[in-house]
Amino acid sequence: MTKLKENKVVCLSGGVGGAKLLLGLQRVITPGALTAIVNTGDDFDHLGLRICPDLDTALYTLAGLANAELGWGRHDETWNFMKTLEALGGETWFRLGDRDLALHIQRTQQLHIGQSLEAFTGDVAEHLQLPTTILPMTNEAVRTKIVTDAGELDFQDYFVRLHCKPILQSCYFTGSESARVTAGVIAALQQNLRAILIAPSNPYLSIDPILSIPNMRELLRANGAPIIAVTPIIGGDAVKGPTAKILRELNKEVSPAAIAMHYSDLIDGFVLDERDAELADKIDLPLATTNTLMRTLEDRERVAKVALDLADRITSKCGNVIG
Amino acid sequence: MTKLKENKVVCLSGGVGGAKLLLGLQRVITPGALTAIVNTGDDFDHLGLRICPDLDTALYTLAGLANAELGWGRHDETWNFMKTLEALGGETWFRLGDRDLALHIQRTQQLHIGQSLEAFTGDVAEHLQLPTTILPMTNEAVRTKIVTDAGELDFQDYFVRLHCKPILQSCYFTGSESARVTAGVIAALQQNLRAILIAPSNPYLSIDPILSIPNMRELLRANGAPIIAVTPIIGGDAVKGPTAKILRELNKEVSPAAIAMHYSDLIDGFVLDERDAELADKIDLPLATTNTLMRTLEDRERVAKVALDLADRITSKCGNVIG
Repeated sequence: MTKLKENKVVCLSGGVGGAKLLLGLQRVITPGALTAIVNTGDDFDHLGLRICPDLDTALYTLAGLANAELGWGRHDETWNFMKTLEALGGETWFRLGDRDLALHIQRTQQLHIGQSLEAFTGDVAEHLQLPTTILPMTNEAVRTKIVTDAGELDFQDYFVRLHCKPILQSCYFTGSESARVTAGVIAALQQNLRAILIAPSNPYLSIDPILSIPNMRELLRANGAPIIAVTPIIGGDAVKGPTAKILRELNKEVSPAAIAMHYSDLIDGFVLDERDAELADKIDLPLATTNTLMRTLEDRERVAKVALDLADRITSKCGNVIG
Repeated sequence: MTKLKENKVVCLSGGVGGAKLLLGLQRVITPGALTAIVNTGDDFDHLGLRICPDLDTALYTLAGLANAELGWGRHDETWNFMKTLEALGGETWFRLGDRDLALHIQRTQQLHIGQSLEAFTGDVAEHLQLPTTILPMTNEAVRTKIVTDAGELDFQDYFVRLHCKPILQSCYFTGSESARVTAGVIAALQQNLRAILIAPSNPYLSIDPILSIPNMRELLRANGAPIIAVTPIIGGDAVKGPTAKILRELNKEVSPAAIAMHYSDLIDGFVLDERDAELADKIDLPLATTNTLMRTLEDRERVAKVALDLADRITSKCGNVIG
């Protein structure tokens, strides 16, 4: 008798691109069946507040509150705090909206009194009535450091303040050796999963921090569900952000093949953009091809379905039947 | 030869009533000649932020930014932070506006990195281009505790959350024994002053905390300028706040005479409301009488002038000449 796979899905995710796939997934599978494991390497303390950009992008996107124009923050935002802070001579390079501030202040306060980041994120998701479980990759402080031609930089210095202009030589994740996967991550990855997806986020800056947490790779592999990465590279460029620039700086080809190679010890399948269909024979993995540019809600749903279908195809070849 | 008194004035002040007199003073004396020594016994930490209600009321009032309708905060305020915090399940009993937040976040951050409250307040006054020096009574944490029939309460619990409803039995100021007057307070009180005023603030909750700082009374008396209190009681009631209620709870007469008595070991003169003129013979001090209700800007200026004139009258009787 073959094992009946459930509809449950885990997706590793970073910022905007990752959140788009999460939204697509949330819309095409059973409510409650999706768990996101989100990068917290970008987190930092600013103005005395704990800011978690990728967790917040996931929360806001899945709640329908994200600011599509800015690519961060909330859509219904006002900026009176920031204007006043500027008038008082405060730091304004990292912009925080009035509504967005509530999340940072509440989080800072709750972490201060001992709540875990995972528990706090769960509380927010509940207040926003999200059907999806959003988990930080760890409760401990793991911070992405960027080694560049301009010296070593904190992530937000590189990403926001310097607009990714310095040439990246390498990056590493302070605190990751002693960080632990959370109870939520363990529980999510011990479920009977239909698929584990790697969102089209930056492999170096968004996904590698997640994979740097001890036992994360082992838990992902041990689950047994097919692990599918969705390409963040389309037609020789990244949709958004510095992925293509970083690949060039690391002397790698700006190609989905380089991404598939980067994940080669982890993934079982790869979703390629239709514009790159001719590269299929360069990637020695089960593939699915579609338009991976996620402009509309329908795009997000399509990419989610194609990735899940690929997982199902891989599973069924292994002798399992899709429920 | 008689000593020529300068125009410089120091005023001890608490919340809204105090700030009204400060504004009147700022408008009737030379720009730069006014120093306010402000109560910080109401300060507290809320949502991880240091809130200093009386300092902020002084700053906003003197900058023309105060919210006259609310009696606290800024006039051009929005509330999107608060609304969002409520939606996230945060504490909302103490309301913080979006613009107001900038001051609290910047202050919390600056205090955290070691700036003194006095230096920070000076920076804000400079950014707001205030002609007046605003000084906290001390840089140390002195906190007003209210002993009531409902138990001992933190000030803001009593004042804001419980709307002053519990019956006050006494109050005291934690930390005052070891608190120090600031360098700014010492410098202000070593100037050649025209007058030291005590604003029509609550004597127990706003002025006594200031007077509880070791050496404060000695510095005030040592200056030699006449010390003049302006009544917070008009026609048997307080203009605003719980002063009358507290006098009753302490079994004192709700009368300007009780206020003059409260300050009897400190003041040289008293400004009485014209509605209470018949009480003049109950107060054994040089008096001035005017309409002390400060509704308009002209009211504020008039009360300021009357108090300064009384100081000048006292000074001239001592053989000095007004410059």
